[in-house]
Order: sequence, then structure tokens, then C-alpha cells
Amino acid sequence: MTNVLVVGYGTIGQRLADGVSLQDDMNLIGVVDAAMSLSIRALKEKGMPYDLYAVNETCRAELAANGIPVRGLLEEALEKTDIVLDATSAGVGAKNKEQYKKYGVKAVFQGGEKNDVADVFFHGYANYEKGLHADFLKLTSCNTTGLIRAVDCLDKKCGIEKVAITIVRRVADPGDYHRGLTNALQVDKAPNHQALDLMTILPEIKATGILVHAPVTHGHFITVVATPKRDISVKEAIDTFKEHNRIRMVRLDEGFQGNASIFKYARDLGRPRGDLYEICIWEDTIVKSGKDIMFGIHIPQESVTIPETIDAIRAAMAMDTDGKTAVEKTNKNLGLGGWK
Amino acid sequence: MTNVLVVGYGTIGQRLADGVSLQDDMNLIGVVDAAMSLSIRALKEKGMPYDLYAVNETCRAELAANGIPVRGLLEEALEKTDIVLDATSAGVGAKNKEQYKKYGVKAVFQGGEKNDVADVFFHGYANYEKGLHADFLKLTSCNTTGLIRAVDCLDKKCGIEKVAITIVRRVADPGDYHRGLTNALQVDKAPNHQALDLMTILPEIKATGILVHAPVTHGHFITVVATPKRDISVKEAIDTFKEHNRIRMVRLDEGFQGNASIFKYARDLGRPRGDLYEICIWEDTIVKSGKDIMFGIHIPQESVTIPETIDAIRAAMAMDTDGKTAVEKTNKNLGLGGWK
Amino acid sequence: MTNVLVVGYGTIGQRLADGVSLQDDMNLIGVVDAAMSLSIRALKEKGMPYDLYAVNETCRAELAANGIPVRGLLEEALEKTDIVLDATSAGVGAKNKEQYKKYGVKAVFQGGEKNDVADVFFHGYANYEKGLHADFLKLTSCNTTGLIRAVDCLDKKCGIEKVAITIVRRVADPGDYHRGLTNALQVDKAPNHQALDLMTILPEIKATGILVHAPVTHGHFITVVATPKRDISVKEAIDTFKEHNRIRMVRLDEGFQGNASIFKYARDLGRPRGDLYEICIWEDTIVKSGKDIMFGIHIPQESVTIPETIDAIRAAMAMDTDGKTAVEKTNKNLGLGGWK
Amino acid sequence: MTNVLVVGYGTIGQRLADGVSLQDDMNLIGVVDAAMSLSIRALKEKGMPYDLYAVNETCRAELAANGIPVRGLLEEALEKTDIVLDATSAGVGAKNKEQYKKYGVKAVFQGGEKNDVADVFFHGYANYEKGLHADFLKLTSCNTTGLIRAVDCLDKKCGIEKVAITIVRRVADPGDYHRGLTNALQVDKAPNHQALDLMTILPEIKATGILVHAPVTHGHFITVVATPKRDISVKEAIDTFKEHNRIRMVRLDEGFQGNASIFKYARDLGRPRGDLYEICIWEDTIVKSGKDIMFGIHIPQESVTIPETIDAIRAAMAMDTDGKTAVEKTNKNLGLGGWK
Repeated sequence: MTNVLVVGYGTIGQRLADGVSLQDDMNLIGVVDAAMSLSIRALKEKGMPYDLYAVNETCRAELAANGIPVRGLLEEALEKTDIVLDATSAGVGAKNKEQYKKYGVKAVFQGGEKNDVADVFFHGYANYEKGLHADFLKLTSCNTTGLIRAVDCLDKKCGIEKVAITIVRRVADPGDYHRGLTNALQVDKAPNHQALDLMTILPEIKATGILVHAPVTHGHFITVVATPKRDISVKEAIDTFKEHNRIRMVRLDEGFQGNASIFKYARDLGRPRGDLYEICIWEDTIVKSGKDIMFGIHIPQESVTIPETIDAIRAAMAMDTDGKTAVEKTNKNLGLGGWK
Repeated sequence: MTNVLVVGYGTIGQRLADGVSLQDDMNLIGVVDAAMSLSIRALKEKGMPYDLYAVNETCRAELAANGIPVRGLLEEALEKTDIVLDATSAGVGAKNKEQYKKYGVKAVFQGGEKNDVADVFFHGYANYEKGLHADFLKLTSCNTTGLIRAVDCLDKKCGIEKVAITIVRRVADPGDYHRGLTNALQVDKAPNHQALDLMTILPEIKATGILVHAPVTHGHFITVVATPKRDISVKEAIDTFKEHNRIRMVRLDEGFQGNASIFKYARDLGRPRGDLYEICIWEDTIVKSGKDIMFGIHIPQESVTIPETIDAIRAAMAMDTDGKTAVEKTNKNLGLGGWK
Repeated sequence: MTNVLVVGYGTIGQRLADGVSLQDDMNLIGVVDAAMSLSIRALKEKGMPYDLYAVNETCRAELAANGIPVRGLLEEALEKTDIVLDATSAGVGAKNKEQYKKYGVKAVFQGGEKNDVADVFFHGYANYEKGLHADFLKLTSCNTTGLIRAVDCLDKKCGIEKVAITIVRRVADPGDYHRGLTNALQVDKAPNHQALDLMTILPEIKATGILVHAPVTHGHFITVVATPKRDISVKEAIDTFKEHNRIRMVRLDEGFQGNASIFKYARDLGRPRGDLYEICIWEDTIVKSGKDIMFGIHIPQESVTIPETIDAIRAAMAMDTDGKTAVEKTNKNLGLGGWK
Repeated sequence: MTNVLVVGYGTIGQRLADGVSLQDDMNLIGVVDAAMSLSIRALKEKGMPYDLYAVNETCRAELAANGIPVRGLLEEALEKTDIVLDATSAGVGAKNKEQYKKYGVKAVFQGGEKNDVADVFFHGYANYEKGLHADFLKLTSCNTTGLIRAVDCLDKKCGIEKVAITIVRRVADPGDYHRGLTNALQVDKAPNHQALDLMTILPEIKATGILVHAPVTHGHFITVVATPKRDISVKEAIDTFKEHNRIRMVRLDEGFQGNASIFKYARDLGRPRGDLYEICIWEDTIVKSGKDIMFGIHIPQESVTIPETIDAIRAAMAMDTDGKTAVEKTNKNLGLGGWK
């Protein structure tokens, strides 16, 4: 059993803890946070299914003052830990890294950190082997993780020469009050980082793209214009995507009208928090222009990176040396593909 | 065991089915619907935890064509049923009533139906006794249900002479594409129906109010200006609300910044679909002006009527002749107040 | 002087009337509408700068009952008219056409009508010559009109082989209550009609695209991935766009952060209604991937078709046989390019 | 002629400059700003209808580098000035005050400043006489300004004992990217400052209230529950409001469905920037509960304080010693009431 500690109990950290708990070959040591929050309040109301550790004494006192049971300090948790999943705010992970080193534990950082925090820029599907035995890995961001699933999947089928990506990015998660837009789209400088990141992970593919922020909370929407090396039909693309256990194909006539339908569906499924690990691709959006193939993807930003982060544990700890086997284990434990 | 059938498997119907399933003295016969939908698709993916009945042969064929297992037709379900929870679209319930009569089953309608569909206009807390042995009950709407919880609770404490209500109404549920507003508030003709309905349920209280629709999905927000018969302090009001098992008191300094915080909290709690049965009142909003007391309420529109609808089953079937006992049973089975 | 009548005094009709009034070689006979509206109320408060005609006696009575001065009926207006700009709701134009024929007047329809209502599917820049002497023209829709400005402009510079278009479509105009989305993106079946329409107007270019609706009101946002026949640099593209009097180049460092900045800027400019006739292209979005060039466009949906509709008058009435001269006259009268 | 300088060329500053320009007994010296902005870019494109002064040399250089003609520095402008309208960001006005004192010029601050910046907390209608000959006045905020118009108007008619106020506050102005909410209502600690401010301006009235932020840009919506000293009918209230030149009565059946309708109407009216100086009260929202009267108000946040700020100039400069005459002059020059 690999001992895993989740540092940072925010939007991503909570879902990582849930995901690790579902793995039959991992043991969740607990979660660590730095301050009182609504999520910790909910953890207590649920009866502390996970042990909670405080990042330091000040934090421990603050949590105690709110009636939250604290199991100990970060250091104590690190002593029992093989690998940390660091889901702290951007920049904090880099500082935490020194402590992880001191305790000789490995760590997986999320997409908000700078690339140089890690030895490997990791994506479960596309470059599993690079993560083997690595001490510090950084996962691709939510958009990039989902995007690469789709592009890598096509690339393995027919070879992809280049992609042009338009991202309609949700500006806030449900419940966010510290950020938001009202009746406005916001344009970013191009190319977007997701295109650059894709080229780092899949260096043989050329990529560029434009990102615009939209005032919604339930998922990003990405369009991809891909130039394949050999011609691929719409039918072939659908069949290829359908085989992938982290991709769902959806259709307008099924009632999937957009990002909000997918959130509703995941709630109706009874998924905790209404989360979906899969990206969705609308069959109705797959079109061709000459050899180019274009399609639209839904990215569930809160949960999409969970599977690939768990893959990262498997790679770093060399729990499986073969990426395909590792990914299948993660999928099985998360229930991915079981619905097919 | 009371045999309950849920007719209409939409936003409310799904939650009624879940709520009935949790009652230790009720048996869910199944759910009935009239057409294929995302929710039915999710029901199938979950492995059909409930039996599904089709409203007629056309519908049965449509469901079968989509690979959905259908247990039978509405008529077959009605034969096994003691009481129906009708959660169909506004107006359909009135038509269904004839069939319920034919099969000699009782029914509880939701707030969208006209009052004359029922013998009793019902609210679990405020007028339980009126529902006893009734054949047809209509529940108050989501806003009215939550509003009456708070007003009735104060009324029982200190007597309420009159209330003036401002409702900021969410325009759509998460996942709705058939209605919505974009960057607009919409004003309704005053007084709002909730004020009128409150006077029907609590005839000794005078009420008026204004309703404005706002472009959000996670809950209505209501302010109440209440004139009590005897002076009541803010502290006393808080204590009174706190004793109520269907009311949660929340505070800004706990991180509850608004409706979206409450939705986030319920998701973090692991509640199915991120639902909350309770209304929330912000302690920070309770203020006085002379004898008048003013406060702000959050109404979780998708799930707030579930407890009172289950109370209605208890009343109609005379499972408990005492309202207090009935409500406590419903609460216990739904886990309400257990977190205190 | 060409006598112009505007039929339909809604969002587009009002702006057409304003635009025609600014032309030194056109005479606005007046505007026609079918029912009382806020816009007509505003027209009266402004002191009736245009004559108003009623579509029939019922409408005339309704307007009179609201104290609105009515100059006469549609038929009386048609007798004085050379050409109608029909800005009625989709489908109505086709019915009106019979009456226009009866009075021997030409007509220009907006993008909502079906193509077969007209002899020519028209875009001022791209196919002016086709509109010469035509009796019935249909203008491209707002997105297509703006899109073609940009694509045609590049096509004339370096030749365009194909384009892939992603449209983030605003769901409602400011003030709309009859349509809207709340916290949702809505996906359409691909390819979008704008891609198909582009191929009708510019048949030598291949086009496809995906459209997603976003809950905003101030303009559509389009990304275009264009494959040029010969390589073109970002600098060259910027210079080409800058020469076009119906395109504005904007930059993030100037403060143009998105669609809402552009609306604000137009308001600050003192443009009536805060309108802009120009499309805007962000210099910051222009990127290349191999030979392909990608860029992002803002489409001011309420006003973008006004210049090309006025071009259509010039073509149909053969006021200018040369497209370039015609467009320059329209531009001069509308003040387009004067700010450079 | 009173020489007026506007310091701060943001949302309010621009509108103050426009409003002062319309006064036949005031002379606009110019506007002052501290940094390049979209609004200054628009000022230049319009051909510099106002002289622009830079707050210091650094700013002058920045403006010059952007090709903006600068007339001089703040100090040079102050030498020609009788009174400043300070529309800088909250807190800046307090710092500027020292400079105004040095040059012996009076100043009117906007609602964002703390009350102690000024000798008088001012509202044109309610306390004009207090502003006479004052050196430093602070205007009520946008919500309070509009609210007091309505309450003061009723108070003069029938006496008001107390009010309870619910404010649905727009979170951002059109074009704002530095603030915003997405799919969230945000609750504030009660009582809101507008209730407290109302009691400062109208000390004989008791007030309390709750404020909730909503994700819209076109105006705040306020409900008022007022307890009059003597009974007043709905009809009487309507007639009283109608006489007020800074209040418009609107109705749902006229097409005014909410805040967005009002913005649309003002755009259709051809008002610069689509602005309205008047508050609007929906006749349809005026209801009674016992003696209490309740109604709903629209506050156009960008422009509502302009008339009262101009009144403040008249008071501070003692241009009129009588408030009624002063207000009528402001109204006449701004065209207020002219439409009746």
C-alpha cells in the first residue's frame, strides 16, 4: 500500500482525497490545510472521514478554536507518507517542496505551479513512462489534461500534425466569490498556455490557440481544429473516442445541450459533488473541412485532473511500469468506463 | 408500510423518490414519467435503483427504444399504490387526478398546480392537522414552503402581526436551458403569490411583497420584515431559529457569503446532487427597526419541499395524528438536525 | 435622392433608420411597425424624429390609444418608397414581400429570412456587383457579415484556402427578456450556418465551424483559423486589417479586455446607443501555426449589419456601379474610418 | 459663471463633465486624470471636447506617450477653478483635499469617500440648505441618492416614520473587468450603509435594511417598506411620485420588465451612453399591508448622482439660496421632467 498525503484541502484537494480513498492499493494518510474553511467545516459535519493535519501551530489553534479535530502537524503526517499530492494555491507548492525533500517524500504538483517545480511535466496517458521513479512531477492543468486526452487519442489512431485550439474558459467554480465576471467575455493574449503545454507533452504536434473567459461555472468548452497525418472520417473519430475510458461521447438529441446539462447529469448520477472525471465530446460538433477535423470538448474543471494525478502516483512509485496497466487500475478504482 | 408512487421524474420528482426511499415506514413503488430525459438516462446508468413506469404505451415504446428497462404502465403502478406524489409540470397534475381517483389512491401535488386541485393547501409545520385523512393535498411552492418555516417559527414564539417580503428569485435550476435571463433583473406584479399563499396557510398574519427574478441558479434569497406582536430581540430570534430542524443558521465569518456558498457546502457535505433540505438564515442579516425584525433567508429551490411533501404523506395516510411527531419522523429519516 | 422605408422598428430597424438618415443621398420616408413597443415609446419621447406608419388599422388604433402620432398606413408609405429595408422578425419579411412587389418597390431583408426570399445573398464588400439592379436582396446575418469582412480582407491580400470558425455567440441583446441563458453554455449542431453562408458568398473558400452560446449581451466573439494560399506574417495581417474602414484593431494594453470593454468604449465615444459599426480584432490574438493564421474578432450584433445594408441600397438602386465607391460613400456618411 | 473642474475621469467623472457642460451658468474648466484609460482614449477620438489636465508630470508623460493632448497640470487647472467635483476612487479624494484647500477651491466628493472628508453630507432635495456656502460637501452614494428621492418625496407628502430597505445591488458597471460575480448572490452584513446614511440625511426617519449583490450591470433594484405617519393610498403615492422631476413612473404593460428594459429605453431615447438621471418606480410594485406602503425602485448607478452633485455646486457657491429654485435650474439644464 502506498501512503498518500493530500496537502491543500480546496477544490482539487478534496477531490484528490476522495479519489485516493477509492484506490485499493493506496492508503490515504490524511489531508493538510493552512486555515479554516467551509470545506473543513463540511469535513467535520461529515464526521471526519479523513484525518486532518494543520500546516503549523497557528493553523492548528485556529482549527481547534472552530471545534475541528486536528490529528497533528504536517511534519507528523510527512513521516508516514510516501508521496504527497500538493493541491495548494499556485506558488505555495514550490515552497512546500523543500519540506517534502527534507522528509524524503515524493510529490505531485497541480497545474498552477511553474514547470520547474518538478522533474517531469506529466500526463497519465501521453507520457506515463517519463514519470516512472520521478521524485517531483507536475500535472498538466485542467484544460490541458482534458485536451490532451482527446488529441493524444486521435494521435495514436491517425497521427496529428497540428492543432488550433479555442478555449471558452469558465471564470469561476461554483461557490467562488473571489473571482468572477458579469456580462463580459475576457480575451487573453495568444497563444494560450494550453497550446504551449500540449507541445511540451506531445512535442511532435504543432499547436496554437486563443482563450476567452466566459461568465459560467460548470466547465470549460474547447474547440479543436486538428490536421491529421492521414485522413480520418467522422465515424472513425467517434469510434476512437468511444474506446477511451476517460472520454464520454454525448449528443444533443440525448439532452446534452451544453456544459450545464453535463453537470446536471453527473448530479443525477449521484456522483459525489456532481463531479465527472470524464471529458465529454459532442458527436454533433465533429465536422471536417478537407482533411482537417474539428470537434468540441467539455472539461469538468474541478475533477478532470484527478485520474491523471492518481496515475502520477503509480508512475512515481513505480507501482506499475506499464502506463496502460496503471491507467486501467486507476480507471477501475474510479469506476471509469464501467458504465459502458 | 405506506406504498408511495412518484409521478413525474423531473427536478422535484427525483428528489421525492430519494426522500421516500430514506423513510423507514414507506415503500417506494417506483417512478413514472412521460418521455425520455437526461434524468432517466442517469437512472439507467445507476442501474435502475427504482422501478420505472411509463405513462402510456407510446412512452413505454420510446423508453424501450432508448434501452431503458420499463416495469410497466402507470395503471399497473397505481394498483399497488396508496398515495401518489405528483411532481409533473404545472397543469398536468390536475389531469392526472382523475386517474388517481379511479384507482382510489390519494395524491399530493406540488406548488405549480392550482389550489383547487386539492382539498387542502398544505405545509407540514404550519397546518399538519388540516391534512389528516385528506385525499388530495397541494403543497406550498418552494419559496412559500421555506418562508413559512421561518415565519411560523417566529409566530409560535412571539406572534407575528404582519410581514413584508422581498424575493430575489433564481430564474433557472442548474442544467435548465428552457428558461433563463442574461444580465437582467425582472420585476413581477406585486403582491407576489407567496405573500398571498402565506396568508392562506397562516390566516392571522397580514402579508405583502415584491418579487424580482435574478440571473442565478443556486437558490432564492428572501428578506422578511416582520412586525411581531411582542418585542423580540435579535438574540432570541437566533435562538428560536436554531431550535428548528429545518432551518440552519449561517454566518458570513464562517464563509457563507451567499447562495453559491451554500450550494458548495452541500456538495462538500457529500449530499446527493449537492442538495440541502434546510433553509439557511444569515445571522448577520437579522436587524431591528423599532419593534420590526428583518432577516434574510436562502431557499434551496430544488429540494426544500421534500420534507414537507413527506409530511403530507404522513398526514393524508394518518400515519401520525400529531404533527410534531410526524415531522420528527420525517426529519430523522432525512437526517435533518442530526448535525447539530 | 433614394426614398427608403424601414419596416420593423426593433433592434435592427431603429439602427437602420438612424443609418439611412445619415446618408446625404437618401431620404428616409419613415419607419413602419406592427405593435406598440418601448422603442416606439422612446421615439415619441424624442419628438418623432421619423414619421411612423402602422402596418394596418388595428395597429394604428393601438398606437393612437397610446398617444403615438401615426402618419399613415404601410400602403401609403410604400407609395412614396423606392426601396424597403425589412427588419421584421424572421419569416415576416417573406410575407411582406408580396406587398412590396405589388407596389413595385425593391427590398433588402435581414439575415433571419430564408435565402430564397431574395434574388441575391448580399455582402457589401464581398459581392457588391451581384446586388446591382437586384429587386430583392438578403443580407448576411450579423456574425457572417463581420466574419466575412475579416476573411474577405485577408483573402484579397493573400488568398484564403479554408477557414475553421469557432463562434461564442451572445444569447440576448441588452434589454431582452424573451430569451436568455443563466450560467450555461449551449452547443449547436455543427457546422454552424455562418460557415455555410461564408461559402455561399465566397465560394472558393472552404469553411466549417462550431457555435456555442454564452450568457452575455455585448457582442459575439469569433476565432478564425485561416489557411492562406501564400504565407502571411502577423505584422502583414495587422497592416491589412488596419486599412479596412469597417475593422478596428484593438489591444489588451489599450484597455480592451473583451466584448464589454468595446461596448463601454462606444458609449464613451458618445455613439448613439453605444453602438459600433466596426468589428474589432485583437492584435494580441493573432498567432500562427505553420502557415495557418488564427485571430479573434468582436461582432457588435446590434449594429454591425447597418453599413452593408446601406451598401445594399446603393447596389439595388445602382446608385454606384462600383462597389468600392459605394462602400466609401456609406462609410463617409456613417463616419467610418474618420477616426484613423 | 461658476468655474468647475472635474477630478477623476472614470464612470462618474465623465458623466459629471457632461452634466456641467449642459448648465447655462457653469463653465467646465476641464477634467483631470491620473493615468491613461479607455475613457481618455475615447475623449481623444471625440476630438477633446474638454481640456484634459494631468495629475502630475509622470501622468502627463504617459498621456503624451499615448498621443493624448494635455492642457496642463492639476495645479494650473486649480488656479482657474471655483469648485472641484472630485470623482476619484474611494480614499483618493481625502488626499486631494489638501491641495484643494491650498488653492482655496471648494469641493464636492462622491459617496465613496468617508463622511469626515466633508463639512456636509449632502443630498440636493433633502437638505439643500445645509450645503449653502459650505467648502466641502460629500454626496450620498448612488443607491442612497435615489432612495432618498423617493422617501423624501413621500415624507413631504404624508410623513414617514420608518423604512425597511432591501437592496439588490448590481455588482459591476458595464465594461468592468476588475470586479464581478458569476452565478452567485452575495449577502452583506446588515444593516446596509444606505439605511444608516438615510438616517443621517433624514434624521427623523428610522431605517434598516439588507443588501444582496446580484450578477447584473444595468442598475440596482430597491424595495422599500415605508410606515407613513398618516395613511396614504396607492393612487396618492403614484401621483406624488409623478410630480417629482427626478422620478419616472413605469409599468410592466408599457414594456418595462426590469432594469435591462430601462437601460434599453435610455439607449433608444438617444441619451448619451444610454444614461438616465431619473430613478424609476414600477407602479405595479406599489402595494399596501395595513398602513405600510411598499414599492420597488430602479437606480441607474452610473448617472443617478449627477443632478444632486450639480445641486451641490449651486449650494456651495450659493448660486441659489433656495433649494427648490436651484434644483429646478439643474433639472431644466439636464432636461429633467421636460418629457412629461
